[in-house]
Amino acid sequence: MYTIEELRNCIKTELDKQEYVEAPVSLFEPIKYIMEDGGKRLRPVLALLAYNLYRDDVEKILKSVIGIEIFHNYTLLHDDVMDDAELRRGRQTVHKKWNSNVAILSGDAAAIIAYKMIEMVEDEYLRRAIDGFNQVAMDVCKGQQYDMEFETRDDVTEQEYINMIYLKTSVLIAGSIRHGALVAGAPEHEYKALYDFGGYLGLVFQLQDDYLDVYGDVAEFGKKIGGDILSNKKTYMLIKALELASPEDKALLKEWIVRKEFDPEEKIKAVTEIYNRTGIKEVVMAKIDNYMQKSREALDKVDVPEDRKVYFREMMDYIGSRKN
Amino acid sequence: MYTIEELRNCIKTELDKQEYVEAPVSLFEPIKYIMEDGGKRLRPVLALLAYNLYRDDVEKILKSVIGIEIFHNYTLLHDDVMDDAELRRGRQTVHKKWNSNVAILSGDAAAIIAYKMIEMVEDEYLRRAIDGFNQVAMDVCKGQQYDMEFETRDDVTEQEYINMIYLKTSVLIAGSIRHGALVAGAPEHEYKALYDFGGYLGLVFQLQDDYLDVYGDVAEFGKKIGGDILSNKKTYMLIKALELASPEDKALLKEWIVRKEFDPEEKIKAVTEIYNRTGIKEVVMAKIDNYMQKSREALDKVDVPEDRKVYFREMMDYIGSRKN
Repeated sequence: MYTIEELRNCIKTELDKQEYVEAPVSLFEPIKYIMEDGGKRLRPVLALLAYNLYRDDVEKILKSVIGIEIFHNYTLLHDDVMDDAELRRGRQTVHKKWNSNVAILSGDAAAIIAYKMIEMVEDEYLRRAIDGFNQVAMDVCKGQQYDMEFETRDDVTEQEYINMIYLKTSVLIAGSIRHGALVAGAPEHEYKALYDFGGYLGLVFQLQDDYLDVYGDVAEFGKKIGGDILSNKKTYMLIKALELASPEDKALLKEWIVRKEFDPEEKIKAVTEIYNRTGIKEVVMAKIDNYMQKSREALDKVDVPEDRKVYFREMMDYIGSRKN
Repeated sequence: MYTIEELRNCIKTELDKQEYVEAPVSLFEPIKYIMEDGGKRLRPVLALLAYNLYRDDVEKILKSVIGIEIFHNYTLLHDDVMDDAELRRGRQTVHKKWNSNVAILSGDAAAIIAYKMIEMVEDEYLRRAIDGFNQVAMDVCKGQQYDMEFETRDDVTEQEYINMIYLKTSVLIAGSIRHGALVAGAPEHEYKALYDFGGYLGLVFQLQDDYLDVYGDVAEFGKKIGGDILSNKKTYMLIKALELASPEDKALLKEWIVRKEFDPEEKIKAVTEIYNRTGIKEVVMAKIDNYMQKSREALDKVDVPEDRKVYFREMMDYIGSRKN
């Protein structure tokens, strides 16, 4: 059995071995660029943790789980074009460093590399592995579509929002865990329980992201606090505040949303105060706890010895209380 | 055995049955839009022809070959964004009718649908089917990258050009034929010969396209003659003219290429005259004949009774002499 740190190192070593660049260089350079800038490697780690519930020979599926990380980065590449994002993990996004065409085509190429690697599994698991990833990939597309549509809507409900982040974020996390379990030969009901577990964990992960944008510590979070507030991003916080705030605060919040000219610090401060008065911090923390509990229950349905689950529980604690 | 027309009808019937649109509608509407606008359905027809060399039950792989057509349309969707094309088959392109984000994301979704359908083959062929399409998809990306790079270069050689169109156009045609042969259980050497056959046929198809832009009949070609000339597209015609024209004509041609202000009709006429004086018509026709011959030789290596190949030969004649 491997610790999370050991699994992360296995992934890092394997990633360092990858040769992304062949001719035409300009197609592959951006893939190298986006893959080398780190990130938490959360999805392949989770896939290996799931595999490790059942089997110890994780090196057998390293390439396949690295495919998942490449898939994740492909979605970021295209999302950044669509959102016209400037920065990704503190570095220029591909379409800013090169241009949109490069980001579109390199993204397409990255998706193919991802599929190729994910498919490096034993024949007996191939059909379900690709079916699983086709479903995941389509759900991620749907999530991104809803996310874009929500930008121009001001009546997004809590349920719609949860569905959107489930599709956009959770499904890939769930699919990564399911993939690890699948290729380890997990029995059917555990394979499904682990998918549910990952789905709830993904919701925790994203709600935590929303939370940290407002209540995170700037030094630990690694990005500016209040970015979502400034861009009026429809996060869980904002949706719940629009629902639960007092009539006065609701009016004030809407005023801040439509205001074109403002001092950024002032807006962040004012909106955060509305959140504080409305008790949004407690609302989101309760929601996170709720999904955390559901993910725990799903993990309990997996009939492997408890000592096999220890690093999964550690990972849950990390995701549930992460600061960055 | 089925005639080309019968196979085309099978494909049409199956395509009509497809339900592309589910929630979120805005993600899937563009896929429906691009799929309903016809086209020759050349790739699925070729795949069925290859299957039909060996087996008669073409209905068994209809869904899989429709996946190929969807794949083809996904590449067109993204290419049109990258080339900022206005029209496709006489209708507005997706990114013009909607916007670039829609075209990128719907393209991504179309690719997933395509993969899902292509993979609807028997388990024994699954691994090779997906390996084959991953290779094809990556080659198409490479071809598109070269095509974009050639736009800003004025020293593209004939060999580079042929390699580019091979990757961008031929490989998918070859891959479609190979796919049909694979799932029909064709023996290894025939499977390879059919891939080569398709590769040469694809070159014929693209060179024919270049030729028709200059020497096509406007009524039959279905699009405006001279479009490539006006946009200085580096076609086989232009590359060979820059190589073979007299020093005076070469200078004149370069002048036309850099000129910013001109009467379109005048430019088309002048460049066509240079092509005529240089004998480019004969050069490209000889090249087409050469690849036609090579594709014939590849088809000869396929050891099925000659009467099984009759519609393939008919298809070759059609592609070799097509007017649109």
